[in-house]
Amino acid sequence: MPAYLTNIVPIFIKRIINPSVLKKILVLGAGRSSVYLIDYLLQHAEVQQWEVTIADLSAEAAAQKAKGHPNARPIAFDLKNNDLLQAEVQRADVVVSLLPADMHLPVAEACVQHGRSMFTASYVSPGMQALDAEVRAKGLLFLNEIGCDPGIDHMSAMQLIDEIKAEGGKITAFYSYTGGLVAPACDTNPWHYKFSWNPRNVVLAGQPGPARYLANGTIRYVPYARLFNEAARVEVPGFGFLDAYANRDSLPYQALYGLQDAHTLLRATFRYPEYCDAWSVMVYLGLTNEQLFFNDCRNMRYRDLLNACLPPDHTPTVREGFEKTLRERLHFDAATVARISAQFDYLDFFSDRTFERDAASAAQLLLDILQEKWLLAPGDRDLVVMQHHFVYELHGVKKEKISTLVLEGNDDYHTAMAKTVGLPLAMALRRYLLGELALIGVQIPIQAEIYEPVLAELEDWGVKFHHK
Amino acid sequence: MPAYLTNIVPIFIKRIINPSVLKKILVLGAGRSSVYLIDYLLQHAEVQQWEVTIADLSAEAAAQKAKGHPNARPIAFDLKNNDLLQAEVQRADVVVSLLPADMHLPVAEACVQHGRSMFTASYVSPGMQALDAEVRAKGLLFLNEIGCDPGIDHMSAMQLIDEIKAEGGKITAFYSYTGGLVAPACDTNPWHYKFSWNPRNVVLAGQPGPARYLANGTIRYVPYARLFNEAARVEVPGFGFLDAYANRDSLPYQALYGLQDAHTLLRATFRYPEYCDAWSVMVYLGLTNEQLFFNDCRNMRYRDLLNACLPPDHTPTVREGFEKTLRERLHFDAATVARISAQFDYLDFFSDRTFERDAASAAQLLLDILQEKWLLAPGDRDLVVMQHHFVYELHGVKKEKISTLVLEGNDDYHTAMAKTVGLPLAMALRRYLLGELALIGVQIPIQAEIYEPVLAELEDWGVKFHHK
Repeated sequence: MPAYLTNIVPIFIKRIINPSVLKKILVLGAGRSSVYLIDYLLQHAEVQQWEVTIADLSAEAAAQKAKGHPNARPIAFDLKNNDLLQAEVQRADVVVSLLPADMHLPVAEACVQHGRSMFTASYVSPGMQALDAEVRAKGLLFLNEIGCDPGIDHMSAMQLIDEIKAEGGKITAFYSYTGGLVAPACDTNPWHYKFSWNPRNVVLAGQPGPARYLANGTIRYVPYARLFNEAARVEVPGFGFLDAYANRDSLPYQALYGLQDAHTLLRATFRYPEYCDAWSVMVYLGLTNEQLFFNDCRNMRYRDLLNACLPPDHTPTVREGFEKTLRERLHFDAATVARISAQFDYLDFFSDRTFERDAASAAQLLLDILQEKWLLAPGDRDLVVMQHHFVYELHGVKKEKISTLVLEGNDDYHTAMAKTVGLPLAMALRRYLLGELALIGVQIPIQAEIYEPVLAELEDWGVKFHHK
Repeated sequence: MPAYLTNIVPIFIKRIINPSVLKKILVLGAGRSSVYLIDYLLQHAEVQQWEVTIADLSAEAAAQKAKGHPNARPIAFDLKNNDLLQAEVQRADVVVSLLPADMHLPVAEACVQHGRSMFTASYVSPGMQALDAEVRAKGLLFLNEIGCDPGIDHMSAMQLIDEIKAEGGKITAFYSYTGGLVAPACDTNPWHYKFSWNPRNVVLAGQPGPARYLANGTIRYVPYARLFNEAARVEVPGFGFLDAYANRDSLPYQALYGLQDAHTLLRATFRYPEYCDAWSVMVYLGLTNEQLFFNDCRNMRYRDLLNACLPPDHTPTVREGFEKTLRERLHFDAATVARISAQFDYLDFFSDRTFERDAASAAQLLLDILQEKWLLAPGDRDLVVMQHHFVYELHGVKKEKISTLVLEGNDDYHTAMAKTVGLPLAMALRRYLLGELALIGVQIPIQAEIYEPVLAELEDWGVKFHHK
């Protein structure tokens, strides 16, 4: 179809199928998290009379997700093109942003301007929160944090909190954990990690910090430099043990979740054992640092990068310097030194390999390495593990409840992560378009009117918690 | 004098004493570093026919520094008042900014606009450097880093570098250290530190990092979290031992100083022993962090602040938790644990004292504590120690040269810091106004035409290096 027709066809469709009913959904971003979201929207598109515009930097990625569906409208989209952004937002009835979290704000501002509601799976940023009054005044809904974590965690936690409270229980401690991991059968590297979502977010996880949580009535801060050192070992019933490091600021959820009686409140991120202590070495060395900048990387070997980050102990080789640092400065025992050294070796950190960039930050170079080494290979399955742990008093008796979701992906494209990020958003959006959500303002999904239908529908897709 | 006359009087003076000769100097900032600078300018003001405008947020501080001198013009000045900034810059022939480093840029932009040269004792920021082409095009000089460190360190280093090269020497290693300390006789607290300059800069020292230097041909990065752990012990001949931590990015000085043959290049900051390891605990805990934010500080005890920053080990008291952290997580030996615990005790960190603020960052609260505890008391003398250490080859023979400045202040007002920050700037400015400096552009003092006369004149003030 010639380019000049792309804007005419939808008008044509609109006329045929009844202009008062056709709803136009604009989906910004067609990356790995969009698979289930777009499939779900297209599945419902004919019945609901939706047009789904799939907008991505890569026209190819957009077309791939559209699969030639008659209600799909794939377009090339660059957020830098503000005219296009304004035109597409104006054209749509509702906007979904799956763009990286720091790109939502210009979209949100366009949505306010043109009076469109908006859905994201990202944390509410201060800029987003600041739009609340305008969003309310226009009767719009900006629903954020409606993905996996944040998203399903909020909904499933709130369902249990409301249940316990309805029974008459008083919640004194609440722990909530989520991890995007690799399925045990596909866990083939010594870091026990493969990427099922944005790799950059994994490298920058926890920055700039600090994390904050409530433990036995004391607010605890964890500066970034300590975040992975202070990971705790947690049992997941029926699965095994995982490590958990504190996830951002847990404290606002005391008010949001209505946990005023809790003396302990922690939101944390799961990793397999042997990940956090080795990653704490990355942090110690500065390898996750975006301000640590290197020139002429094509002539820099992986071991030169590592060496530049080591304290200046004089050793014959980089490997010896690295192991000496682990032993003498970080006080790891011999077995752990050997294991972490093997983990770094797996990433070729003692090798003569060179980088394929001219200049870059340490974080970028590390990302280059990990994108090769932690790739979810064809056929690999990912894993989402979520767990809520409540301690509460019921009629004077101390009780505990543990609720666990363990979900494997189908393959490296149909991941558990894409499913759990995309479906809650798509389901909430469907209900919004059906007129079943009366909420307005900048929101996160902690109301029964959202969590009840979405959690029920998620069970049909195999996304189901087990309670203990 | 009525306010409406303040702008008329200088015009009147100008008419009497010859308008072609009177030079107007605008000094922005009359804090503790301005004492010697303003005295020097006023000493020369009558002979040189200078008017010295002393501009400060506090009209009182400006008037105090003016001492009623007939050539001084104290004014109240707020950088937020852009009209006043423009008017004062336009009115002046040359501008000195002693404002905090992050405030120089609007001043510099006004100087470019009105065609005025500018002097600062601060590091050249990227924004300042970006003005270079415009500054040159207008034939102006923006001379920065003309204080103590940066300043005297550049000048004294360059004089020695030029001497060694003139002899035929090849410099293979260069270490340059400066510390603003307290005189040994006035060192009365277990941190061995008192403030002789901006206390906020001491709390934030090294942030955000990383530091960078060259060691035996290898570029080394030091993330902020490690900066104070990796301090090195250095002998200062005739004085004793000090610790030194890496100061920002040493690498640009390889080109600036002409040290292309050096395999080692380190600029570092001196502290007394027992400071750096204890301060590394502050950093570890997050107490120097501006993102770690507390509400309701009036009801927070000092020990609550410390406790919030401790890892979650269960101990009966904050002191026990603190000492357990030092012992088990930071692996200090028993004597060091006891000593650092005493250093924190000196700051009342185990006490029930509360803060006098509603909400603040950890860094701000720490600053509140330290401004009381590390005050340079009436009569206390400060100390500036600077040392350059060269390793070089001369006609095939390896040689070393150590050049040291140890300067005590007179009292808590006439500090060695104020002397060494203010006099180099004032001396360079005098020469500029006499037409003795032909330099233009954004510069730092590494040229013989600046360092020779300034270092010679500094010796008259007792600022003198000893060589070994």
